[in-house]
Amino acid sequence: MNSSMVVTDVPVVASYLEGEWVAPSAATEGTLVRDASTGEPVVRVTSDGLDLAGAIEYARTTGQTGLGEHTFHQRALMLKELAQYLNARRPELYELSAVTGATRIDSMVDIDGGIGVLFTYGSKGRRELPNSNVVVDGPPEILSKDGSFLGRHIFTRLTGVAVQINAFNFPVWGMLEKLAPAFLAGVPTIVKPATPTSYLTERVVRMIVESGILPAGSLQLVCGAARELLDHLQLGDLVAFTGSSWTVPVLKKHPAIADRGVRFTSETDSLNAIVLGPDAVKGTPEFDAFIRSVVTEMTVKAGQKCTSIRRVIVPNAVTGDVADAVADRIAERVVVGDPRAEGVTMGPLASLEQRGEVRKSLDALVSGGGRVVVGSLDETDVMRADGSVGPAGDGAFQHPVLLQFDDPQAHAVHNVEAFGPISSMVGYDSLEDAVRLATMGGGSLVASIVSHDLDVVRTLAWGIAANHGRVLVLDRDDARSSTGHGSPVPHLAHGGPGRAGGGEELGGIRSVLHHMQRTAIQGSPDMLTAITGVWHAGARAQAGDEHPFRKPLSRLKLGDQIASGSRTVELADITAFAETTGDTFYAHTDEEAAAANPFFPGRVAHGYLLLSWAAGLFVDPAPGPVLANYGLENLRFITPVSPGDSIRVTLTAKEITPRETDDYGEVRWDAVLHNQNDEIVATYDVLTLVSKK
Amino acid sequence: MNSSMVVTDVPVVASYLEGEWVAPSAATEGTLVRDASTGEPVVRVTSDGLDLAGAIEYARTTGQTGLGEHTFHQRALMLKELAQYLNARRPELYELSAVTGATRIDSMVDIDGGIGVLFTYGSKGRRELPNSNVVVDGPPEILSKDGSFLGRHIFTRLTGVAVQINAFNFPVWGMLEKLAPAFLAGVPTIVKPATPTSYLTERVVRMIVESGILPAGSLQLVCGAARELLDHLQLGDLVAFTGSSWTVPVLKKHPAIADRGVRFTSETDSLNAIVLGPDAVKGTPEFDAFIRSVVTEMTVKAGQKCTSIRRVIVPNAVTGDVADAVADRIAERVVVGDPRAEGVTMGPLASLEQRGEVRKSLDALVSGGGRVVVGSLDETDVMRADGSVGPAGDGAFQHPVLLQFDDPQAHAVHNVEAFGPISSMVGYDSLEDAVRLATMGGGSLVASIVSHDLDVVRTLAWGIAANHGRVLVLDRDDARSSTGHGSPVPHLAHGGPGRAGGGEELGGIRSVLHHMQRTAIQGSPDMLTAITGVWHAGARAQAGDEHPFRKPLSRLKLGDQIASGSRTVELADITAFAETTGDTFYAHTDEEAAAANPFFPGRVAHGYLLLSWAAGLFVDPAPGPVLANYGLENLRFITPVSPGDSIRVTLTAKEITPRETDDYGEVRWDAVLHNQNDEIVATYDVLTLVSKK
Repeated sequence: MNSSMVVTDVPVVASYLEGEWVAPSAATEGTLVRDASTGEPVVRVTSDGLDLAGAIEYARTTGQTGLGEHTFHQRALMLKELAQYLNARRPELYELSAVTGATRIDSMVDIDGGIGVLFTYGSKGRRELPNSNVVVDGPPEILSKDGSFLGRHIFTRLTGVAVQINAFNFPVWGMLEKLAPAFLAGVPTIVKPATPTSYLTERVVRMIVESGILPAGSLQLVCGAARELLDHLQLGDLVAFTGSSWTVPVLKKHPAIADRGVRFTSETDSLNAIVLGPDAVKGTPEFDAFIRSVVTEMTVKAGQKCTSIRRVIVPNAVTGDVADAVADRIAERVVVGDPRAEGVTMGPLASLEQRGEVRKSLDALVSGGGRVVVGSLDETDVMRADGSVGPAGDGAFQHPVLLQFDDPQAHAVHNVEAFGPISSMVGYDSLEDAVRLATMGGGSLVASIVSHDLDVVRTLAWGIAANHGRVLVLDRDDARSSTGHGSPVPHLAHGGPGRAGGGEELGGIRSVLHHMQRTAIQGSPDMLTAITGVWHAGARAQAGDEHPFRKPLSRLKLGDQIASGSRTVELADITAFAETTGDTFYAHTDEEAAAANPFFPGRVAHGYLLLSWAAGLFVDPAPGPVLANYGLENLRFITPVSPGDSIRVTLTAKEITPRETDDYGEVRWDAVLHNQNDEIVATYDVLTLVSKK
Repeated sequence: MNSSMVVTDVPVVASYLEGEWVAPSAATEGTLVRDASTGEPVVRVTSDGLDLAGAIEYARTTGQTGLGEHTFHQRALMLKELAQYLNARRPELYELSAVTGATRIDSMVDIDGGIGVLFTYGSKGRRELPNSNVVVDGPPEILSKDGSFLGRHIFTRLTGVAVQINAFNFPVWGMLEKLAPAFLAGVPTIVKPATPTSYLTERVVRMIVESGILPAGSLQLVCGAARELLDHLQLGDLVAFTGSSWTVPVLKKHPAIADRGVRFTSETDSLNAIVLGPDAVKGTPEFDAFIRSVVTEMTVKAGQKCTSIRRVIVPNAVTGDVADAVADRIAERVVVGDPRAEGVTMGPLASLEQRGEVRKSLDALVSGGGRVVVGSLDETDVMRADGSVGPAGDGAFQHPVLLQFDDPQAHAVHNVEAFGPISSMVGYDSLEDAVRLATMGGGSLVASIVSHDLDVVRTLAWGIAANHGRVLVLDRDDARSSTGHGSPVPHLAHGGPGRAGGGEELGGIRSVLHHMQRTAIQGSPDMLTAITGVWHAGARAQAGDEHPFRKPLSRLKLGDQIASGSRTVELADITAFAETTGDTFYAHTDEEAAAANPFFPGRVAHGYLLLSWAAGLFVDPAPGPVLANYGLENLRFITPVSPGDSIRVTLTAKEITPRETDDYGEVRWDAVLHNQNDEIVATYDVLTLVSKK
């Protein structure tokens, strides 16, 4: 497959360990992988002789050090650059992807989807994380009356390695969706792809290595069996597993995970459901969207997705309509065959072994009460690479089949998964019944609810949410714009309880934090400032001769402060403000009515007057490094200001975030307004853009 | 112990299952528990014959239903009422607590500490959660360009039961700190206290039942062995364990947890460290705070706390000073004896069995290289209940001992825990060395850093954070106000990686969410609004004849909206605003300088002018249900407004939170400012208080 591999009859897939490509020497051994459509040998895969302990040690040392030299923003930027690098090399990946049995659309989901994850983390990492190595979690907690003792939570990265064990169905996306959050957290990765499609993962890793973008030790690749990989793991390491649900208990009981504090997360295929609402009868846009979704999920990747729809739950009255419509759409749209042939829309399963498994499950479904209502168990003709149609030969093809169960609670339908283009339909009586059926899957990655009725959707969603990692509501409003039942998006959590593995991946920054340890920090405001990189009220502040608005980012320090003089608010000011702004709310204009309000002593100044005057008190008007006030957060009005009261403001640099790609950055200022009695009038954060120089 | 128990020679502790008190009939069997100070028999404890499967089913049905009839706020209020109820009954609990060997201060930590957790959750539940049953997590994610397809995360409660297995050392706090978050989440509890102190837990449960505050099925009690309790658990249930670290792997491998998707969290004792900074030499306030902390943590609860300091890590140069100062303070302050005797400051261990364990560990520490530098292994005299001093008899007493290890990396010091008043000291060379030693504990609940040097603290804190659940920084500024090394506070997460169990409890609302499932919801704005109870931009809105400010909470609906007319901003307005507010920032006053700014086309209106005018545009001035604007959040200025531009505002009811105990509640309004070209000028949330009627 690749010039650097040891080639005998069939090339061996190489691994990338400790900065070197290693092709196991026993080239004729290992597992033989065949072209899914033709059965031609493609590669051999083995991890024999690889120094796995050495790889782990390399990650913990070189990898941790290299990643630790960068901030979240810097690492996010590398992910963006990597995304661009890979994006330009997609054609090469598409070609190789077809060998796995993937159609062009299947490859898009895997390859473009994976690159999309990198882009999202490249962007979110810079927008939602600080430009440092510590994430602050939640607000400060004041633990003593005098404010001298505070608590706050931080996240810091795990000290070890993330071992990522992936499934065969998404050799590119599977790697990148785990790599991106680990990398952003600062934790090095050892990826172990599934053997049948490891050659495609290997090609992507080669591109990543060639790009030179990631620091040394960030990413290593082990192709072949995991062997004793887990035995070397310890506290500070993490195992992220995607694959069959029966493997999860085995891994959970492994001493590294059960005894030694290695973090574990898993995402497995599950018996995902789609529920058709009673309102979404034939002729509604929802019915059409439902049918499209069922057929898409049955046929994309030949149904080999952890998220594929396995259970179709519909009102009893419409089972016939559904079967007919699914059959029509499959007949219209689905051409099974070699993805390299023009017109083919559904490829083979990954391998003959895989097809054997699917047929076994299909038998179990049929003997468990399933009647075939769409498709046939005997269909074998497919379109071959040359465009001819005929028997599949050594290709691992399986035609789509929809079963129907007359007993909606039949054990098989909620427990047997055929990991191919196979779904089962059951009918329901009531929404309560539909909820019960959906949750009988024992925990799923995703369920779709198809309805345009708000009450139906709310009842179903609340009823099934706790058993699902994701719930998609499909109706006429989002049918076109929806990313679809089967597609995890990097912004949202992917994973689910119970049979779905009990883990959580993606979800934006959430999965970055899964690679970090949350720690409660207690101490004085000074100490919390030093540890978090965020100024805390009560910490040291410097009100020097120079106004802090005159300091560029390069000179601005946390705690740089301006304490203003005071200004008295007269009734005439309030009246004038009411007139010019139009805000004549009675609390500002009608003494008697204001005094009757439970919160005001009488007429009070507008909150917006106070904010505006505060800006007048703290601002330094001449052009300087402060470029703009782009926002404000967490404003609370505490004590009302009456005519005759005076206010003063203290503004303190609270958080400084230089940008990597601009000549400015964000500065968050802590603003506190006091009155003449030193009571707090208002607190808020002022958000500004400030030049670096 | 209690009139409802079956009494023979020694009473049997009752369990509370399915709404009934059950005292196992085999009253002379079970485990005999003795008074820790005197060895007198107190109770027998057994779970023989209890219907555990029935209790679980009762929780899943009656418990889930009863809790589900209330919102977060209503449940929080019940916790507050329960706290008040128990608070009035503390004397009875103190008396019983002394039998366990607890001094008055020990009892305060357990009893008042536990009640404090209820108060905190009673308060946080109403301040930080919505008054509903769904928690919205994170901002909406816009998943399509046209905004018709959104994603958002919600939390809904687990569908089963929380089985809470507690340790002997905090029979009251241990129960309440687990019960409060489970209850607030809406998940029923079955609590299983540790046998040696179960009679005190039983007494508290009796009070809770008598109070009648909690819905039926919220809380059940199993005293005695857990037996097959876990065998009945399934997906939707949760096990929260506190106890010895060796039990955790056993539980993790239990089929309920490894195979069936039962959630598991554990908190175990660990080898917690205190690190003295190089600056904190004898004579500094930090040195004194350090010595106080070491002696307190050695002696409170006779050192039987998961959080006690086991490892004292100090600069090599000061080991002698530390030993002397610890010895002096123990001599001055510590009187070992029966807690019922006047003047006793440290009680016995929980039992003679427990003392046997401690002595075994002490032997292992000594044979592993530990030299006794404070205390003596042979000291046996204690103060008895009558005030006399002499041999301990059948009391489970153990005097404090500080060991020193000359080899700071000795295996025993970082691996052997004597769960009593025993600590070990090691010396360090450099901060790097100190970090390495602290992390050799293999994961801890807490570490203290004692230093007044910001750089020292930062280096140590960043170095050890990932191995710790909590880090306390102690210095002159918080030495008096600190809640101390050993005390988890309900606001902050309690738990730690590795040896500390790998779990997380408390941490405010965080632990409520641990009893809920996070689910990503995808759909149209209407559907997300229906499911989350929060209005989403793009969802249906009603701009009716009645201004929404005229609607009390009882009539206000999500999506009620006012779309204002527009108002043009003239240069004179900007100039006048600059003059009256004093905000003469050049972007508003100097055309040339403003145009040179990268973000402005020329002079622009003040952001605060826009906010103030917007209020003028949306406000309905006459007295009505809207009582006050108490704050503002998430303000972002998007498009600058130049002279001649006009603005209009759309204000929509986004979130409605009636209070349980007031005749008003909070309403969050979505505010969007547009200009004459329909470009977004600014977005923010306006926070108001609105009457119910």
